[in-house]
Amino acid sequence: MPDRLPFDHLDERLARAAWSRLTEPDDRAANRLVATLGAGPALDWLLEAARGLFRAVPTEPPRGGWRTAAARWTPRLTDLDPRRELEVIARRGGYLILPGSPAWPVGLDQLGESAPLCLWAIGARNPATLTASSVALVGSRASTAYGERVTTDLATGMAERSITVVSGGAYGIDAAAHRATLGVYGPALAVMAGGLDRYYPNGNSQLLAQVAATGAVLAEVPPGTAPMRTRFLSRNRLIAALARATVVVEAAWRSGALSTAARAAELHRPVGAVPGPVTSAASAGCHRLLRESRATCVTDAAEVAELVQPVGTALPEEPTVAAGLLDDLDLEQARVLDALPARGEAVFGAVVRSAGLDEASVRAALGFLELAGRVTREGSAWRRARVPRG
Amino acid sequence: MPDRLPFDHLDERLARAAWSRLTEPDDRAANRLVATLGAGPALDWLLEAARGLFRAVPTEPPRGGWRTAAARWTPRLTDLDPRRELEVIARRGGYLILPGSPAWPVGLDQLGESAPLCLWAIGARNPATLTASSVALVGSRASTAYGERVTTDLATGMAERSITVVSGGAYGIDAAAHRATLGVYGPALAVMAGGLDRYYPNGNSQLLAQVAATGAVLAEVPPGTAPMRTRFLSRNRLIAALARATVVVEAAWRSGALSTAARAAELHRPVGAVPGPVTSAASAGCHRLLRESRATCVTDAAEVAELVQPVGTALPEEPTVAAGLLDDLDLEQARVLDALPARGEAVFGAVVRSAGLDEASVRAALGFLELAGRVTREGSAWRRARVPRG
Repeated sequence: MPDRLPFDHLDERLARAAWSRLTEPDDRAANRLVATLGAGPALDWLLEAARGLFRAVPTEPPRGGWRTAAARWTPRLTDLDPRRELEVIARRGGYLILPGSPAWPVGLDQLGESAPLCLWAIGARNPATLTASSVALVGSRASTAYGERVTTDLATGMAERSITVVSGGAYGIDAAAHRATLGVYGPALAVMAGGLDRYYPNGNSQLLAQVAATGAVLAEVPPGTAPMRTRFLSRNRLIAALARATVVVEAAWRSGALSTAARAAELHRPVGAVPGPVTSAASAGCHRLLRESRATCVTDAAEVAELVQPVGTALPEEPTVAAGLLDDLDLEQARVLDALPARGEAVFGAVVRSAGLDEASVRAALGFLELAGRVTREGSAWRRARVPRG
Repeated sequence: MPDRLPFDHLDERLARAAWSRLTEPDDRAANRLVATLGAGPALDWLLEAARGLFRAVPTEPPRGGWRTAAARWTPRLTDLDPRRELEVIARRGGYLILPGSPAWPVGLDQLGESAPLCLWAIGARNPATLTASSVALVGSRASTAYGERVTTDLATGMAERSITVVSGGAYGIDAAAHRATLGVYGPALAVMAGGLDRYYPNGNSQLLAQVAATGAVLAEVPPGTAPMRTRFLSRNRLIAALARATVVVEAAWRSGALSTAARAAELHRPVGAVPGPVTSAASAGCHRLLRESRATCVTDAAEVAELVQPVGTALPEEPTVAAGLLDDLDLEQARVLDALPARGEAVFGAVVRSAGLDEASVRAALGFLELAGRVTREGSAWRRARVPRG
């Protein structure tokens, strides 16, 4: 075990990046520890725990207790190096998003202790604004021509309405949703189960690179993390939380897409299911949702759009504050603001690396942000200005 | 206008047959008049009304008043001859069923003032027992190969469970339901919108003759009545009331099958809808029912059977009394009992004509019924014995 960490662990960005490496997704104990102590001090607590010194945590212990939690985190303390992972994501044009920052999709906060500790992102558009009006189109990898056709129709209809199509980048329905969205230059968002150092599955890597080029690709795990079955399941909660509504286009009787629908329902988000031939096993999961009254029957884009924004209602309330904070920032400006630590300061070169942008762009963005009163400078060090929220 | 009617209008059988000619289906005023005065005295009332003499009816007047009602009935007093119509139905092997008689399906009573005044029937099996466990499979005339295949699967599954398949004898889904039921020797019931002197549509007449040969074909209108659009709509309430549950297999956005579903819902009977491809207009009505939560999604025979007899429930209560009355009668005995007037007596020859059976069969049936205490004889005249109900 290291005596101390080989990076500035009180830097919120590095600390949260580190925690996303130490934990598996949806680790409620880690979330509680970080929320109680702060991400950096929580790393101190873990280093001490690794040496057998358990400091009391001033909050209710998690299921299984703090010792058990620490025991599953400490093995990954070895070789922990979030700076390296931030460099990897920056080289791919990506960046890290911290909770509460302008690019943070507020829909995630509804997950409570299941919210991700941070988001790794690659993409041209701001995930917060992308998700303000959005629908998840999900379904079987083993899709049929019927399912793909319907997915294409629905995704095209969403693009026409400027509703972002969120999906998981898998073969089958996911890929059809992304492909159709890109085909009409609609807003696209993909959420990966593994790290963004490479896109999975390999056969969709070009498609996902296009999603990143015009929309965004997100993951809660750092680069170098392999997609595994459990990570697909926990990834589904992010899809449900990032979209205003979830629609299952095709799903077998037991299908991962049904777990996304279940997570959406837990969040009280609308769930839709597309019916299909009763003779098709690929629609059995959709019919199950309909039969158990866990989904609304949707048959075209207008009906899906109604789930996202019911007739006679105003725009959804949730994203208003965050959207307000970002409305006057372009993506580069938002990224640079995100690149600044929540507390403390950063030198120009560090901001450049964090933002994943060239120096000239960062300089221009910092200049704008300074004029807008969003950042302040002391010598070569930049820090965020306090912005009134709401 | 005739001064008097050319038949014994105080004979309940003749009087109700006459009223089924005088009125269009679902005439609530006629139902109320007959319920208040009795069918025969109600004819007296109408004869007087035809001469401008309006006797007070000791009940609440119908919408529009009694004069308006009488005005729509009196034109058909001319040439009223229910004996001739009973002969027509008898020549086709048919008979008349009066409310409360052993062949009367008790499910109809739930229609209240919309119940039919009598039923014209042709068939080998007792409609009361046929409908004790039954499901209506209805849908578009403009069916698809998919809809017909699903209908065949469902009807076959019903036959395997001894659940009677009720339908309307039309082309498309109705015909597929009847055909599949007959194909596996299942219990079949068809309800016609026109008189049973000929089956409509003509192209299905052989199919409907087969339904009659093994099950039953019913109508509330007398022989010689043409099927008309409004009669199809009122016929749908009979289908809904005769079946324990109604399932729409395929229906366009506006379809008569949806009216059957609506009538079933009014009767608090379960309604099912079979989903199909969203690209098929023939399934749009089914999806509409699902989307508006007016039907349960059903995808196979087991799910349809569950509508008829929900898991964990006992046999439906409604038919118990009537089934009890009939359990020890075979169809010929039940028909002969039905052929006797509710009040008053009938000579042997009249019973033969009413029952639509040969003399030997009627003689045997009367003998059995006499031994069972169901009928009594005075000379050559037969009358029903009072049977304790319930």
